[in-house]
Amino acid sequence: MGTLDTLFAPDGVAVVGATESEGSVGRAVMENLLDGYDGIVVPVNPNADTVFDVPAVDSVTDAEGVELAVVVVPPTIVNTVLEECGESGIQDVAVITAGFGEAGSEGAQLESQMKAIAAEYDLNLVGPNCIGVINTPTGMNATFSPKFPIEGQISFMSQSGAFITAVLDWASDQDLGFKDVVSLGNKAVMDERDFVEYWGEDPDTDVVLGYLEDIERGQEFIETAQKVTSEGTPIVAVKSGRTEAGASAAASHTGAIAGSERAYEAGLQQAGVIRATGVQELFDYATILEGQPTPDTNEVAIVTNAGGPGVMSTDAIGDSQLEMADLNDDTVERLEDTMPDGANIYNPVDVLGDAPTDRFEDALEIVLDDPNVGSVIVVACPTAVLDFERLADAIVAASETTDVPIAASLMGGHSADAAEKILGEVGIPSYFDPARGINGLDALYEFAQLQERGYEPPTEFDVDRERARSILERTRERENNSLGVEAMDLLEAYGIPIPEGAIVDSPGEAVEAAESIDGDVVMKIVSPDILHKSDIGGVEVGVPNDEVADTYGDLISRARNYHPDAHIIGVQVQEMADLDAGTETIVGMNRDPQFGPLVMFGLGGIFVEVLEDATFRVAPVSESEATSMLDEIDSAPLLRGARGRDPVDEGDVIETIQRISQLVTDFPAIMELDINPLVATPEGVSAVDIRLTVDQEEL
Amino acid sequence: MGTLDTLFAPDGVAVVGATESEGSVGRAVMENLLDGYDGIVVPVNPNADTVFDVPAVDSVTDAEGVELAVVVVPPTIVNTVLEECGESGIQDVAVITAGFGEAGSEGAQLESQMKAIAAEYDLNLVGPNCIGVINTPTGMNATFSPKFPIEGQISFMSQSGAFITAVLDWASDQDLGFKDVVSLGNKAVMDERDFVEYWGEDPDTDVVLGYLEDIERGQEFIETAQKVTSEGTPIVAVKSGRTEAGASAAASHTGAIAGSERAYEAGLQQAGVIRATGVQELFDYATILEGQPTPDTNEVAIVTNAGGPGVMSTDAIGDSQLEMADLNDDTVERLEDTMPDGANIYNPVDVLGDAPTDRFEDALEIVLDDPNVGSVIVVACPTAVLDFERLADAIVAASETTDVPIAASLMGGHSADAAEKILGEVGIPSYFDPARGINGLDALYEFAQLQERGYEPPTEFDVDRERARSILERTRERENNSLGVEAMDLLEAYGIPIPEGAIVDSPGEAVEAAESIDGDVVMKIVSPDILHKSDIGGVEVGVPNDEVADTYGDLISRARNYHPDAHIIGVQVQEMADLDAGTETIVGMNRDPQFGPLVMFGLGGIFVEVLEDATFRVAPVSESEATSMLDEIDSAPLLRGARGRDPVDEGDVIETIQRISQLVTDFPAIMELDINPLVATPEGVSAVDIRLTVDQEEL
Repeated sequence: MGTLDTLFAPDGVAVVGATESEGSVGRAVMENLLDGYDGIVVPVNPNADTVFDVPAVDSVTDAEGVELAVVVVPPTIVNTVLEECGESGIQDVAVITAGFGEAGSEGAQLESQMKAIAAEYDLNLVGPNCIGVINTPTGMNATFSPKFPIEGQISFMSQSGAFITAVLDWASDQDLGFKDVVSLGNKAVMDERDFVEYWGEDPDTDVVLGYLEDIERGQEFIETAQKVTSEGTPIVAVKSGRTEAGASAAASHTGAIAGSERAYEAGLQQAGVIRATGVQELFDYATILEGQPTPDTNEVAIVTNAGGPGVMSTDAIGDSQLEMADLNDDTVERLEDTMPDGANIYNPVDVLGDAPTDRFEDALEIVLDDPNVGSVIVVACPTAVLDFERLADAIVAASETTDVPIAASLMGGHSADAAEKILGEVGIPSYFDPARGINGLDALYEFAQLQERGYEPPTEFDVDRERARSILERTRERENNSLGVEAMDLLEAYGIPIPEGAIVDSPGEAVEAAESIDGDVVMKIVSPDILHKSDIGGVEVGVPNDEVADTYGDLISRARNYHPDAHIIGVQVQEMADLDAGTETIVGMNRDPQFGPLVMFGLGGIFVEVLEDATFRVAPVSESEATSMLDEIDSAPLLRGARGRDPVDEGDVIETIQRISQLVTDFPAIMELDINPLVATPEGVSAVDIRLTVDQEEL
Repeated sequence: MGTLDTLFAPDGVAVVGATESEGSVGRAVMENLLDGYDGIVVPVNPNADTVFDVPAVDSVTDAEGVELAVVVVPPTIVNTVLEECGESGIQDVAVITAGFGEAGSEGAQLESQMKAIAAEYDLNLVGPNCIGVINTPTGMNATFSPKFPIEGQISFMSQSGAFITAVLDWASDQDLGFKDVVSLGNKAVMDERDFVEYWGEDPDTDVVLGYLEDIERGQEFIETAQKVTSEGTPIVAVKSGRTEAGASAAASHTGAIAGSERAYEAGLQQAGVIRATGVQELFDYATILEGQPTPDTNEVAIVTNAGGPGVMSTDAIGDSQLEMADLNDDTVERLEDTMPDGANIYNPVDVLGDAPTDRFEDALEIVLDDPNVGSVIVVACPTAVLDFERLADAIVAASETTDVPIAASLMGGHSADAAEKILGEVGIPSYFDPARGINGLDALYEFAQLQERGYEPPTEFDVDRERARSILERTRERENNSLGVEAMDLLEAYGIPIPEGAIVDSPGEAVEAAESIDGDVVMKIVSPDILHKSDIGGVEVGVPNDEVADTYGDLISRARNYHPDAHIIGVQVQEMADLDAGTETIVGMNRDPQFGPLVMFGLGGIFVEVLEDATFRVAPVSESEATSMLDEIDSAPLLRGARGRDPVDEGDVIETIQRISQLVTDFPAIMELDINPLVATPEGVSAVDIRLTVDQEEL
């Protein structure tokens, strides 16, 4: 796939299916293109000589000077058109026509053919089932939506075409400018990753916005988005179908197979996508990311003329990752010298209700000088002595002398409109509700952190991959795809500590194994047909050496009683884990249809199973990602010495997460895996039990 | 205190401190009153013959036909004026003047005098340190803020005067009407409770709105608000100073002693106050509560012409207490008959992008007929065939035939303005972001539930109050105000089961006590000077009868070693609680400065102490409130049979919470109390240990 320059800014556009017929899509697209596009427009229609006085050609192969074809013909003809495009060297195509993957098996078949043709000719194909493409610098509206946005630095992709029409209608009244807009449709060929990649390198795109219902190729998306974000272009997205209720609607909408919300949460976070919960947040974030620099610290100074709104702003800061700036002594002194008696010279700085513009100006200048202050919000209530427009001018002037981001809340109705326009022109957002401005500053800070985070490759541990493969291949010999404690050596092959022990198949061997282990032992039945060993009395803890032989017999007969035909591999004789000194954790993995291997961490027992206190990452997991998993769970204090326990060795837990990440990345055949428990102690970790499922076809 | 009718709609207003002096508050108030107020205005100013051509009087005692005095004279003169008001029968006063409680000790003293005068003359006093009072039906603007709102059914109180000026400025462009507006100021005399009570009985107030930084007299507020809400008037409030950061700003603002957020959370919930997190929510909720009926169910139907916005709306429903309506068979059949192929006839109902108004109309009519549907949101994207104004007319027509609340999201910019106006006139909110409309429907549903909840008096258990008093009085005999296990009989007096046992002070008595108990016993040192008994080896568990005498000696000597001067009451010999069969819970109480006794419930051990998984209610706690406490904690499944445990007797836990609520309500002297653990088993509960602190002056 080449650059998308010719998709968004082609020298000429062919409209395949152009017509003057009232109410048709072909007519709307022609009208939109003829209205302002600075390139060539060629209508393709074998039944017309001209369309709106433009000479028509019979086939796209006859269209000259054209780099983009917009296709609006019926679905059964589309693939023929695409072949013609390929043959005649048109690489960029937007298929507006619907009736493909979203419309039953026949449509799905057409869409498969479409993919094959696109692959053959290396087409940059948008859609099908979309509203088209917009580019403001060339004035190109290659959609059937009548509204054309003003030019700006935001590029926007949406999986809902209707949402684009709504946003364009709304944005035209908001002074919100766009560069490229693309309707993703069914994403038969190009998807969100392609556009994120292109806009990441596009000097004219400052912010990438997305409305997404699902994400294709999750791991590749993460990689691309991470790169784009760390190189300075923020990506903000609403991922819709978030909640269970929403996901079912998404599935019936475009036939998208929605990944689980947990996977998206992890994946988007790792990708560095700033997630907006709704439409308002999406554009609030876009506005401030486009207009303001990123902050150096998370500390915010509030400058206000009113106590109440100062408190509200402080609340909003408390709800975010931001903090109230701790103004330094010099700042406080200067404020004391400059402000009248009664003013609050600590944060929130209250310049009092009788403050004219210049008092705001002075306070703003002083707090902007404070190195602790990462960002500033000016919150002003209307008073008899305050002129919002003059205040806006003062804020703009202050912003020109600083790299500290500024937001405003001029708390008025239309009386604030002119001032908001002045601020908007230099990229300073202003809303009635100060919480919106603070939310925006929070997004800026998040972006600053994402840029700082950069890209950290996962650690490559020295492991015995061949040994692991041979252990996984044991499943070939059985009907069942799951492995249990008999696969403990898989962990050993990947350098994860396991208790001393052995799997034996006679009482004598059991005694021998137990004697080689210090102290009492744990004995467990080993059978692929018995998943819940404890439930059938298949586990005995604290067995002294002289009872090992009898216990062996008991375990075998319990297993036989439970399941006469069970394939019994033997009995595991294992060193006792020092559970009292340790904390049970779980490290697990599930394979998500979109994002692939999703690694889980949490505390064992009730914590994951009842309280659902667990955290997820898409593998491969880097060291800092694994570290943050430990920070994220609510029960983390239990690992860190709460209630008089000794803190566990967190480093070993973090390393185990990474080693499991490496294992499941190396072997796509592992579909599910649970180490439960992984006992963590002050001295290290020990994986006491394992269960995993393998897809033999992937081996 | 009489009715507030004459405060908000007086026949005449005296402005004490009226003047023509440029930039003064006295001038601004006069100007505002002379502009539109339909009553008599009397300026009071001994140095002026007239103010704005209105004849002035020297003293408020000379003002005739006046029911309200607005006071703007310097703080040192205010109290004299108040006495004059009292003497001359003016009961309603708004003191705008600042310089009282918020301004140091001198001001605080003036404020105390003010309270005494108000009490003597039974004054309805607003302020001091406020911006005044507004009433739209009489056109009275008795504030110094120039904006006057349009008339409506919302009454609004605010602890921030500046916020009122901001809201009035903004609301005038939003078609948002008010009835009464009051600036609470320092709340020296009248506070939020008084206004909630008055507006609850005011037929012209449909919704009560508040911006509050603290709440005085928490328990009385709860009682009044509960009554007002259950009788049909919703109360919506922003409680500012929510977060820790916010609370410290509130404290430095009006000298308010902010109660803890936990207490406010519990108190406002019990009061039935619908809590808005910010300004936008405050007015969104007000708009829909004023304009729409309450829903019968929490199920919402979405009618839309676009898949994407349908999914977004579904997400927003998933984020709320609402659910996607399950349309019944008849509805689905009727939609199938009426809608074109490809339309989604399940919820969200998608009438497709080519839908003209009448298709929306049909779908709306059908879903409104479905008894499952509690409320409806119409979400429309702009298309070539859809006219927003005609759609708005259709929605209005549909709303006139139903009691089902309706919200709209016409997703356009100014192209939706005229339609939104049509909807707004009949009280149907419409926002670009469908989530805002759904949030509003959620608030409506919350109000429906609050009305249904009504008022439930706390259960009065038959207890031995005199015995409890005598136990609490034991603290008189000692220096220390705290009681420990020696107060277990306090629980007995209030009918809370405790293990069998006794406090003894000799080895012989210990043996005797142990022999009367089945099985081994627990022995604990009892001393007001030893709080953490376990830490000094002051607790022995599982003591067989033949070791009781020796253990007695050990415990006493360990206590002596630890603290030679400790006052040792003796040793408690207690039945062993069956901890394996039970779950440790905690029932506790803390006295909050605003709300009084705050009862806590949670699970023992790590759950409250590490995970902070606890829930609070202001006492007295009714049975349904106590029941909801069990539902609220995350660890509730552990009480209900998670992981193979037997479910505990929840009824006994709920009863214990109520009995503790009764105890701490009966004895305001109890400052803090912890039953830790209260062991809950399938058979009942047993309070194993207690600790409490008493304020002897309250006994």
